[in-house]
Amino acid sequence: MSRPISFLSDFGRSDEFVGVVHGVLATLAPESRVIDVTHEVRQGDIRAGALALTRSIQYLPHGVILAVVDPGVGTERRAIAAETAVGHFVGPDNGLLSPAVAIVGGATRIVSLESEEARIPSSGATFAGRDIFAPAAALLASGEAQLGDLGPDVDPGTVNPLLLPLPEVNGGSVTGEAWWIDRFGNVQTNLSPEDLAGIGVRAGSTVTVKIGLRLHQVPWVVAYGDVGKDEPLMHVDSSGLIALAVRNGRADEALSLAEGATVTIVGAADQTS
Amino acid sequence: MSRPISFLSDFGRSDEFVGVVHGVLATLAPESRVIDVTHEVRQGDIRAGALALTRSIQYLPHGVILAVVDPGVGTERRAIAAETAVGHFVGPDNGLLSPAVAIVGGATRIVSLESEEARIPSSGATFAGRDIFAPAAALLASGEAQLGDLGPDVDPGTVNPLLLPLPEVNGGSVTGEAWWIDRFGNVQTNLSPEDLAGIGVRAGSTVTVKIGLRLHQVPWVVAYGDVGKDEPLMHVDSSGLIALAVRNGRADEALSLAEGATVTIVGAADQTS
Amino acid sequence: MSRPISFLSDFGRSDEFVGVVHGVLATLAPESRVIDVTHEVRQGDIRAGALALTRSIQYLPHGVILAVVDPGVGTERRAIAAETAVGHFVGPDNGLLSPAVAIVGGATRIVSLESEEARIPSSGATFAGRDIFAPAAALLASGEAQLGDLGPDVDPGTVNPLLLPLPEVNGGSVTGEAWWIDRFGNVQTNLSPEDLAGIGVRAGSTVTVKIGLRLHQVPWVVAYGDVGKDEPLMHVDSSGLIALAVRNGRADEALSLAEGATVTIVGAADQTS
Repeated sequence: MSRPISFLSDFGRSDEFVGVVHGVLATLAPESRVIDVTHEVRQGDIRAGALALTRSIQYLPHGVILAVVDPGVGTERRAIAAETAVGHFVGPDNGLLSPAVAIVGGATRIVSLESEEARIPSSGATFAGRDIFAPAAALLASGEAQLGDLGPDVDPGTVNPLLLPLPEVNGGSVTGEAWWIDRFGNVQTNLSPEDLAGIGVRAGSTVTVKIGLRLHQVPWVVAYGDVGKDEPLMHVDSSGLIALAVRNGRADEALSLAEGATVTIVGAADQTS
Repeated sequence: MSRPISFLSDFGRSDEFVGVVHGVLATLAPESRVIDVTHEVRQGDIRAGALALTRSIQYLPHGVILAVVDPGVGTERRAIAAETAVGHFVGPDNGLLSPAVAIVGGATRIVSLESEEARIPSSGATFAGRDIFAPAAALLASGEAQLGDLGPDVDPGTVNPLLLPLPEVNGGSVTGEAWWIDRFGNVQTNLSPEDLAGIGVRAGSTVTVKIGLRLHQVPWVVAYGDVGKDEPLMHVDSSGLIALAVRNGRADEALSLAEGATVTIVGAADQTS
Repeated sequence: MSRPISFLSDFGRSDEFVGVVHGVLATLAPESRVIDVTHEVRQGDIRAGALALTRSIQYLPHGVILAVVDPGVGTERRAIAAETAVGHFVGPDNGLLSPAVAIVGGATRIVSLESEEARIPSSGATFAGRDIFAPAAALLASGEAQLGDLGPDVDPGTVNPLLLPLPEVNGGSVTGEAWWIDRFGNVQTNLSPEDLAGIGVRAGSTVTVKIGLRLHQVPWVVAYGDVGKDEPLMHVDSSGLIALAVRNGRADEALSLAEGATVTIVGAADQTS
């Protein structure tokens, strides 16, 4: 009956913030399992949180998604809950939820979390994760509340969509950006294999990659082991996107790439296979 | 039947200490949910652990609280379990549990964890979290043991109370201390809004705060957004206590404050409302 | 019916890798509890992961052990599942599982995880923890699959055994190595009290320990409190092995010891008790 809750935030683990939210969830939804997606999203980085959620969403159990990366806490941004085909999403209306909601087919209904009965009163400042988002997620997961109990309906057209950059084709090249750098220094871009096929670049080629003013020749391979130690490579990563890596090394450092940096695929230098 | 266990420690996450305690709990209380409050209490800092527990306690589910910050492991300090209105507290008798137990109305009974049958034997040194505290918590949570099965009763008057400093009023000023610095650099004090009301200082004032030899003029506001970027502010935080913060910055650095430092509120400089 | 899953990896917590594996486990084994043993094994350090598992295994609930430290991902190393007296072990065939499997009495059957039906298809590179190991662990834990459903049987003689160094006795001394340095700087060796008894060294002695070219006189005591502040000591640790420590300090720094370094116990210098 009770559904699982998947919880993502930028709270970190050094204080008890994550633990207190877990306490609220366990109190209000004692039968719901809680999955910690990650709590190490860079503080206040809505886009990084939204991307982590999009990478994870298809692997999370149907139920409730609780996501809190909320630099606007205490301002006029709304707190929302969205109903989708895979369950409910709960979080701030700042774009954090939007890409993942889109991936699962969009929201069929969205409410603003304004019901005082569904909040935990605080004698001081509101800790929204604890006082607003966690109770809403727990009440939805346990079935104690229906979406409409949490607040008034919101026009989906007014919800912050978080515009993510799309790849741009210019003649024979396609320009995207560094989307995510994981802890190993691997650089995921927003380019798909289809984007590269569109400019005639296919797996097996050595590809010319422009980063800043520099051109790099990078082989498009299947596995890290297909290049020599410390050599760069391009591959389709486990999210299905084009990524740059260095075998036994860090691509972000080797290629001077930070999240958000521009990456242009100029074309195939040759055809090696 | 089985009750949840909320677990706090200074074990950190870099080794398997927390995981091994979870293993013991899962073995002895297979139906009990476990909530990790935090495991990043500064190593051996009993007061920091006790304060984290007091901030969390009202949000944790009724059941068993397992708390281990235990610099005296291997010495004569007792291991105890206390019965309260919200469930059982298990941990070392070094003051760690005392403030949280007091908040929930005090202990109705306390025992010393001396029963060999309720311990896990070890071929070497005792890892008390694993061998003494976790089994006691699990047996209480699962109902396999009653408090009296774990060891002899202890006179509550002999339990370490952990004396926490109280604010001191001197004429028109009140002196407290920095109680907790969170990972964002926010500084929670041990002063309440009532303490400040006692010297005639109310929300909306600009307050004169003395730290070391320096005086700072700090507005008492509701939200971070009520001051400009990089400016200091005072507010009632989500624990209901007076806290110092800097919008988009770190108050500990801006005001040269460490945990335990003295903070004096001299009075209201003006009334800005 | 559903059995618990104990999960160890070198994924770290900074990205969502651990969370995504939890999502897969929760989806495929919704009734199975998951215990995080640790995810902070040094990246790619198979031996460190294997040792953490051997230290933990007797405290984990019977069920499924999922362990992923897998520097050879994408190469020809096999993915395996082993049946033992305490449940199933799932992980790469690189030695990671072998010492813990040996401790619990060895494997009665081992299969290679080759069944496509038991894997999650990926549009890009395989994230083996998510796509191969987690589904296998979940299907075994939930009872949805039997071992034989996951792939063909493997000859146990072909499984990577991970050879761990054994202590060597030379006349009156015994030579072992630093096995594990925990976050406090305590140095666990691969020497047991029995190894030292074999050269006539017993608890209560002051022991001559050779590290590199230097000789140290270290008392073999029961508790840290048996020596003065900042002084070195030797004791039987909570794993039952000989360990070097410094009271209120770091033995790794004081004795210039790294994991894998050679430690020779030359003999007892005197008999202090």
